[in-house]
Amino acid sequence: MDMRSGERLDDLGRGGLRIIQHPERFPFAMDPVLLAHFTTVRRHSRVLDLGTGCGVIPLLLSALHPTARITGLELQPDTADMAARSVSLNGLNDSVRIDCGDYRQVVQLYGHERFDVVTLNPPYREPGTGAISPASGRAGARHELSGGLGDALEAAATAVKFGGRVAVVFLAERLADLVTQLRSFRLEPKRLRLIHPRAGRPANLLLLEAAKGGGPGLKIEPPLIVYEEGQTYTAEMRAIYNA
Amino acid sequence: MDMRSGERLDDLGRGGLRIIQHPERFPFAMDPVLLAHFTTVRRHSRVLDLGTGCGVIPLLLSALHPTARITGLELQPDTADMAARSVSLNGLNDSVRIDCGDYRQVVQLYGHERFDVVTLNPPYREPGTGAISPASGRAGARHELSGGLGDALEAAATAVKFGGRVAVVFLAERLADLVTQLRSFRLEPKRLRLIHPRAGRPANLLLLEAAKGGGPGLKIEPPLIVYEEGQTYTAEMRAIYNA
Repeated sequence: MDMRSGERLDDLGRGGLRIIQHPERFPFAMDPVLLAHFTTVRRHSRVLDLGTGCGVIPLLLSALHPTARITGLELQPDTADMAARSVSLNGLNDSVRIDCGDYRQVVQLYGHERFDVVTLNPPYREPGTGAISPASGRAGARHELSGGLGDALEAAATAVKFGGRVAVVFLAERLADLVTQLRSFRLEPKRLRLIHPRAGRPANLLLLEAAKGGGPGLKIEPPLIVYEEGQTYTAEMRAIYNA
Repeated sequence: MDMRSGERLDDLGRGGLRIIQHPERFPFAMDPVLLAHFTTVRRHSRVLDLGTGCGVIPLLLSALHPTARITGLELQPDTADMAARSVSLNGLNDSVRIDCGDYRQVVQLYGHERFDVVTLNPPYREPGTGAISPASGRAGARHELSGGLGDALEAAATAVKFGGRVAVVFLAERLADLVTQLRSFRLEPKRLRLIHPRAGRPANLLLLEAAKGGGPGLKIEPPLIVYEEGQTYTAEMRAIYNA
């Protein structure tokens, strides 16, 4: 077992998939799980996950879409190394690859328009807003230190093929920012799903899929409700975690 | 009773409010009722309803907010006359006024930034798309013959005070168009509510309130579901119709 000091091994809960995480490098929460399930991936698609962190999105996508070839790109070397070890641990080296690099250099890394699908779980706050977590791994993930939302979407728009899809999980309250920036990169919103923590409460997250060069026309899917009474997941959430 | 040939008198279902309609001038549907209930109107607010048609939004707003002073602007003289007669019929001449005019001349009509709230139930299709209904009143209401969404939003942005609100009911599938156009007129989306015909079905309509010159941050409210099983309204819809 290839583990480093301070790391822990977690069960991803589907067919024995496991993932190495580090408490100071922002362990994944619900967001990437929702995004992996929301994203449309056709057989043999080439998928790029920008800012992959501990690699949870590539691991889940690989379990859901065994024929896809998935690349995860992570800026921080320690985190990229941890993600790569999780891929090896699960025997997924044939379908998932982890690269260490900056998504602002996506052209140098991969060229133009080479992926069918790009997934993105961007930092939720622009640089310079809110408190910065002292642990640098967390700070990079929660705040847009290495580029704002615009940089991330520009990288996605550059990497995805014409007609391909960019799938994003983001704060519901920033929907207007996301839509206007997507359109500025010719990424047309095609599917939107809102996540409400409970029925009768405002949405806190959104899932959005945009098509590069697509025509207008957005399908707003039924909302996803996370919790029933108390801390019990709804049936749909339980299905997602057990898929 | 001041009625013209072909007109009919309908009950608006709240405190005896009645409205004159004409079958060939696009009788109002659910949309303006939802918009009137969604819109935030403070005491003694000045409200402008652009493209008021038979005047249903001013009549409902007046019933819900008796201290508001409401102006309805309608392009077609026959329809404006019909709306004005509905106002008189309900004894609302002190709080509601109907003007006949083109909202592209909103500055000449009202000057700049004179209203606290502007409501807008714009045509849902851009000019030149879809089939045009032969009856000209209907054609004007369903299609953007006298200006597209952009013209309507420009008029709203011109008429509303800085910090005031513009409330819109629109097609859910055109959310991205609406958001990008609102922002181009410095109207920042602040509240969004999606209307789903049934639970588990995509949204078909949206209600959105934007603040002139507002900062970013959108509250996405719980969805409104219209029907239970069959054609029975949900409890919330019944409450709206009986408010």
